Amino acid sequence: MADTKKPGKSKPQKAAVVGGGVIGGGWVARLVQNGVDVCIFDPDPEAERKIAAVMENADRAIGKLTMAPLPVRGSMVFASSIADAVSDAELIIEAVPERLDVKQAVYAEIEAAAPRDALISSSTSGIMPTDLQDGMMHPGRLLVGHPFNPVYLLPLVELVGGKTTDPDTITRAAACFASIGMHPLPIRKEIEAFVADRFLEAVWREALWLVKDGIATTAEIDDAIRFGFGLRWAQMGLFETYRVAGGEAGMAHFIAQFGPCLKWPWTKLMDVPELTDDLVKTISDQSDAQSGMHSIRELERIRDTNLVAIMQALKANDWGAGKTLADWETALYDAVPARTETAIDQPLETMRQQVPSAWTDYNGHMNEARYLDCFSMATDAVMRWVGVDADYLAAGNSFFTVETHIRHLDEVVAGTQIFATSQILQGTGKKMQLFHHLYAVVPNGPDRLLATGEHMLIHVDMTTRSSCLPGDAVASRLAEITEAHARLPRPDGAGSAIG
Amino acid sequence: MADTKKPGKSKPQKAAVVGGGVIGGGWVARLVQNGVDVCIFDPDPEAERKIAAVMENADRAIGKLTMAPLPVRGSMVFASSIADAVSDAELIIEAVPERLDVKQAVYAEIEAAAPRDALISSSTSGIMPTDLQDGMMHPGRLLVGHPFNPVYLLPLVELVGGKTTDPDTITRAAACFASIGMHPLPIRKEIEAFVADRFLEAVWREALWLVKDGIATTAEIDDAIRFGFGLRWAQMGLFETYRVAGGEAGMAHFIAQFGPCLKWPWTKLMDVPELTDDLVKTISDQSDAQSGMHSIRELERIRDTNLVAIMQALKANDWGAGKTLADWETALYDAVPARTETAIDQPLETMRQQVPSAWTDYNGHMNEARYLDCFSMATDAVMRWVGVDADYLAAGNSFFTVETHIRHLDEVVAGTQIFATSQILQGTGKKMQLFHHLYAVVPNGPDRLLATGEHMLIHVDMTTRSSCLPGDAVASRLAEITEAHARLPRPDGAGSAIG
Repeated sequence: MADTKKPGKSKPQKAAVVGGGVIGGGWVARLVQNGVDVCIFDPDPEAERKIAAVMENADRAIGKLTMAPLPVRGSMVFASSIADAVSDAELIIEAVPERLDVKQAVYAEIEAAAPRDALISSSTSGIMPTDLQDGMMHPGRLLVGHPFNPVYLLPLVELVGGKTTDPDTITRAAACFASIGMHPLPIRKEIEAFVADRFLEAVWREALWLVKDGIATTAEIDDAIRFGFGLRWAQMGLFETYRVAGGEAGMAHFIAQFGPCLKWPWTKLMDVPELTDDLVKTISDQSDAQSGMHSIRELERIRDTNLVAIMQALKANDWGAGKTLADWETALYDAVPARTETAIDQPLETMRQQVPSAWTDYNGHMNEARYLDCFSMATDAVMRWVGVDADYLAAGNSFFTVETHIRHLDEVVAGTQIFATSQILQGTGKKMQLFHHLYAVVPNGPDRLLATGEHMLIHVDMTTRSSCLPGDAVASRLAEITEAHARLPRPDGAGSAIG
Repeated sequence: MADTKKPGKSKPQKAAVVGGGVIGGGWVARLVQNGVDVCIFDPDPEAERKIAAVMENADRAIGKLTMAPLPVRGSMVFASSIADAVSDAELIIEAVPERLDVKQAVYAEIEAAAPRDALISSSTSGIMPTDLQDGMMHPGRLLVGHPFNPVYLLPLVELVGGKTTDPDTITRAAACFASIGMHPLPIRKEIEAFVADRFLEAVWREALWLVKDGIATTAEIDDAIRFGFGLRWAQMGLFETYRVAGGEAGMAHFIAQFGPCLKWPWTKLMDVPELTDDLVKTISDQSDAQSGMHSIRELERIRDTNLVAIMQALKANDWGAGKTLADWETALYDAVPARTETAIDQPLETMRQQVPSAWTDYNGHMNEARYLDCFSMATDAVMRWVGVDADYLAAGNSFFTVETHIRHLDEVVAGTQIFATSQILQGTGKKMQLFHHLYAVVPNGPDRLLATGEHMLIHVDMTTRSSCLPGDAVASRLAEITEAHARLPRPDGAGSAIG
């Protein structure tokens, strides 16, 4: 695994989180996983247990989310006072209850102990930063950095400055949050509830009316969201969706056509339903009927598994939250020291990752076809090692696999760390013959051999799809490693046939 | 491919669609793809061209969405009058402009010619069904079936009855829409804009204010949705999400905690912004800056590719819209005649599908690892053929692959129809040795051989993970096919080794 904590200069080395609830705990998890040392203050004696629970979920989710080399985990320390927590922090996250007086008191304690240039980021979902910074000694460094639950997965963080926030504070915070895999969205003017929560409140208000008036239950309302426009909004927002619906005539046409038609329901239900005990009980009972068969922990994991799958799906399309994920992974890979410095007198380590749960069969074991995925990655790594990089491919040359022989020797379950080593058996002329070993890491024991893969590749001109000799640099690098590997013992099973 | 049109008794054989815009065209595509014959009426001379464009997108999307055996396509005929279109339809979909007088005039023409028991389903996004059915001869069969764009992908359809709608009409419509892969959601009481569009309008209203007041641009608003709560809503709705956020204390606790805090922004912006020319221009200009680099066609395809990927991701988790997809696919598979009736004196056809675009490399060709996916499917099919079915697996026995030899002979691009045939080389004792050929279908030419796969499998007790003899029924079925296949020529390349 990568042995680094520095994908980007913008990433803080040390952060403090004041308030360890669901949001504060989510911040802690995201920071620690990104290699930031975190100091936490929360007077709740249960805080340590609660954050451990969030961290367990977050580790489970991140293990499914990415195969990129995560940095060495940051440390996690519980401080006995705000002063202790913030004394050497570069980034200070406030995630205490939504009361202005409580937050202002916390800032006074932070300012008394924090470094002068530390960023102070409030997680409030609605209070204006100008109100928050009222009475601060150095209000220029305070901003709102409003995240979304689960903080360790959802990329959005709204950045809102108050009247006395330095513009540089927003710039620094944006770089800092981007370095831990988030999508910072600076909001142009401060307003209560900022942008996203205004929408959530509008929908919440409407939903309360629908339940109160018996139009739909909580389960039906949720279905109206997740089987329809909720799917759309995971990838395009309101305006882009409507632009598409409007067709070639564009947005002005859409508004001209649908504006008046949308208007009449606007004239109703502008009122706010009162949260009477009866209404609260109705909602609560319906919610129990809808979701009560799952514990909150189960629901959290279902949610996280779904979010991971959605983000990975969007990553494959290089779009939206998937692009944020891809950019973060690129930074993680870039942070790994180049492997070409490694000695070539041993088989090369050519892949290492956790077995994703999506790779398993109904029986929980890695599907047979995924063994070839592993060997395909290992083959790609060998190709990069000998100089078949993006430029070489773009120039129209590559190696194509013409033959594969796999011996499936042992099973492996999801979550296991696996790795491959690769030996070049032949590397002259147009041919490259590889022999991979796939192992599972066994804690406190010797690695377990899962499979071997033997592969014959031919160098091709990708335009004509016919074979040709590799370029000089690749040929000489390949020859060099082949010569070194010729001194290794011939692997058991090489050249064997089935039956 | 499956040669049937009847996954369920509820599915209509013939439908009519009146109005061929984006929504009507989407209905046509979904119906035709599900094997329903559709007759269309739209006075627009451009209707045929417009529906062809929707159908092209829909075919592209469905090709990525599922590998299940789609029924034989329904026919698509353009009628010259409403009477002609509806004369023998079981389901009549109305998708004309959102004007009550226009819709009522259409129903009069429909009723004059349609079978007495045909369902009449309005696609209106807001008009109350009681108003729609006013003046109808047989109003009991009218309902609102409100779909969401793109209709050929999004599963939700809201079902709303008016004062004189027969309860049986809602039941029949729900079964009918479920049979074409949708998630019907009956709404308890009629109300303008029903459920989902009330939310969309609430958000739209809020969004117009944010743009007008310069808080955020259309692009920023869209990002506030799709990088945050939009991801959540693709899989859980508002209430389930908040239930999770509320923690173990449940929904009543959540409301008690967040209700008052959410309340203050409710007291603002209840007003409706006026759609002045200036505001329309601002939105239009911002939308151009945000999305103008893509044509509408491109945006549609990006959207569809994302939706497909999200639905497939949720399918893997058996959740929400992914469960709807899985249920639909199960019905499609169930509709395929059992294969065991096929002769066994030839290699068995063990897989057939289109190459999904997700299976391709950067160069557009099927990734080498996907060849083993194909052979793995073929092996699974052989196992089912010899009686290794769900019951057999549940009883704790299976065959495990211990060795694989692939010869990659030719490339294949996304969208190509491919199929595999399988020959059993050995099938006695604990061993099963298979030889698969993978072919691409070449229109008007001989099939093209892409690869061969040779596999050794061992029968195992899944509890102890050690080898054992198969059950008698499986052993005898396997012996029968092995004996028949022993009379076939030995495949070229069987038993060969690499190098």
